[in-house]
Amino acid sequence: MLQELELPLPNDFHIHLRQGEALVNYAKSAGEQFGLVMAMPNTEPAIDSPELVKKYKEEILAAAPNLQVLLTFKLNKNYTEQELLAMQKNGAVAAKYYPFGVTTNSQDGVSKIEDIYPTIALLEKLDLVLSLHGEEPGVFCLDKEKDFLKHLEKLSKTFPKLRIVLEHVSCVEAVECVKSLPENIAATITVHHLILTLDDIIGDSLRPQNFCKPLPKLPKDRDAVRAAAFSGNKKFFFGSDSAPHALEKKQSLSGAAGVYSAPVAVPILIEEFEKENKLNLLADFVSNFGADFYKIPRQTKKATYVKKEWQVPKTIDGAVPLRAGETLKWS
Amino acid sequence: MLQELELPLPNDFHIHLRQGEALVNYAKSAGEQFGLVMAMPNTEPAIDSPELVKKYKEEILAAAPNLQVLLTFKLNKNYTEQELLAMQKNGAVAAKYYPFGVTTNSQDGVSKIEDIYPTIALLEKLDLVLSLHGEEPGVFCLDKEKDFLKHLEKLSKTFPKLRIVLEHVSCVEAVECVKSLPENIAATITVHHLILTLDDIIGDSLRPQNFCKPLPKLPKDRDAVRAAAFSGNKKFFFGSDSAPHALEKKQSLSGAAGVYSAPVAVPILIEEFEKENKLNLLADFVSNFGADFYKIPRQTKKATYVKKEWQVPKTIDGAVPLRAGETLKWS
Repeated sequence: MLQELELPLPNDFHIHLRQGEALVNYAKSAGEQFGLVMAMPNTEPAIDSPELVKKYKEEILAAAPNLQVLLTFKLNKNYTEQELLAMQKNGAVAAKYYPFGVTTNSQDGVSKIEDIYPTIALLEKLDLVLSLHGEEPGVFCLDKEKDFLKHLEKLSKTFPKLRIVLEHVSCVEAVECVKSLPENIAATITVHHLILTLDDIIGDSLRPQNFCKPLPKLPKDRDAVRAAAFSGNKKFFFGSDSAPHALEKKQSLSGAAGVYSAPVAVPILIEEFEKENKLNLLADFVSNFGADFYKIPRQTKKATYVKKEWQVPKTIDGAVPLRAGETLKWS
Repeated sequence: MLQELELPLPNDFHIHLRQGEALVNYAKSAGEQFGLVMAMPNTEPAIDSPELVKKYKEEILAAAPNLQVLLTFKLNKNYTEQELLAMQKNGAVAAKYYPFGVTTNSQDGVSKIEDIYPTIALLEKLDLVLSLHGEEPGVFCLDKEKDFLKHLEKLSKTFPKLRIVLEHVSCVEAVECVKSLPENIAATITVHHLILTLDDIIGDSLRPQNFCKPLPKLPKDRDAVRAAAFSGNKKFFFGSDSAPHALEKKQSLSGAAGVYSAPVAVPILIEEFEKENKLNLLADFVSNFGADFYKIPRQTKKATYVKKEWQVPKTIDGAVPLRAGETLKWS
């Protein structure tokens, strides 16, 4: 039986590191888990200028000096070509689009994506990536991602050279849509969408620690996401969407959306890939495919994981991690 | 415009009054809202003997002397005919069946309903009602009610004279099933299943105050429940399933299921029936049909409601009521 596993350092192409004091802890913790992270820009205020990109990168590196950090900025308005070039120079590789009001700090989101087509044309020109939170506002919660796909299809047609990532895919239709589009359209997959369904949020008692956007959905949706992750298709790669919230924001009458998965993501991935007998595809999923898509060098350093049980703490850095209190097989 | 509405005193054919100190408050509050309540037996310990039925009735009446109280007992084992007669004598009109583990205090539930068929045969003989929490354990949360219907159909065939209530119907399939069965098969409808969907629990932020079993489901399910309530079909009548939990049990990493609706149920019903232009059917839904089904006299006393806005308090008796903080039109 396999007792040890060597992987290239994992790359997390979608993480929320928050800000202030919390950032210090979350960045440190991410530095222990990943070789590279791509940090999301939905802080308050949002990361939406070259200066803020630079500052955010410096803050993250101050806490985790060995972490390779890719930055994003928020597509909450149109930008000039000059601004975008400056973003790029300061470390941004992608512009993140949040539709209005669909998740944490998205009240400044754009209501109509066509309004920012001028900027999206510039992204294509400058070879910056468009990163999408793919949920349609104002529709029934289980239909939000499915109903967003029309925008992805239109973007792909309108900007044929633009690299686009549909982040944290969560439903059958999204997986099928990404597969059907050209190779410059990819998707990230989180650990929690590989293992959770609505049953883990509202099936038994109410479990706010598993509540997030997009929602983990039906078993058939989870199965489609799993099939994509275990397929060896380079369009699907790892982005944790690790999104910690302080315990009191979770235990609330208006509970915050987000799963804190960074500290457990790789051990759970190993467990799931092992279960499906697909460990041979894990290095690509967790590290190589994302690097190739973002046109950065693959990791050359390795990390070694051992089969040794450990119990996930009830809280880490004040937030409840995924599978808190449960036993994981790999460390 | 209608400014005043007279209704027979409302009958709530499904309420949780809890126990101990909490019972005193909840029973008092129910006494202000309803002429009659049928109290559910899932206390701890469960109401499952003639003595406990008698004691529970006395406790409720001590807190709310003017309330007419029907009792239930828990179908967590087989009973003798003598025991059932004693239950009946002490005020019980229905036996409540909870499948194993589907809701609050159902860990003593029966795993296989056929195991208690001997008792169900006696219920039929003694003309006691079988009250069902209709959810199948161990299946995906949104399928639990649908997958339970096979048991209802089998019960209806096996015990053709037995009166059965499928409590708190919440999905299209359940509404259709009840309609298709003989007239001794009825269903209660709650206020919250008339107005909520999953959007109100997990659509935006997480709202534990709206989390309950069975889950409010898709818009099409809510619409089917609404159509049944507004149809004038005597098989569908009001049972609030008002199920208060202390705030701290709701704001938890293992949040309790139940909506506290008793203090707002009738005002919301008036609002919804008015919206659908069906106020002429409300007296039957909220009072007469249930009385007829349970073979008790219809209410002769009246209650008068006035169109006067009021704001629902954030908490009532330590629990968050349905529509807390919102404005209702009728009082």
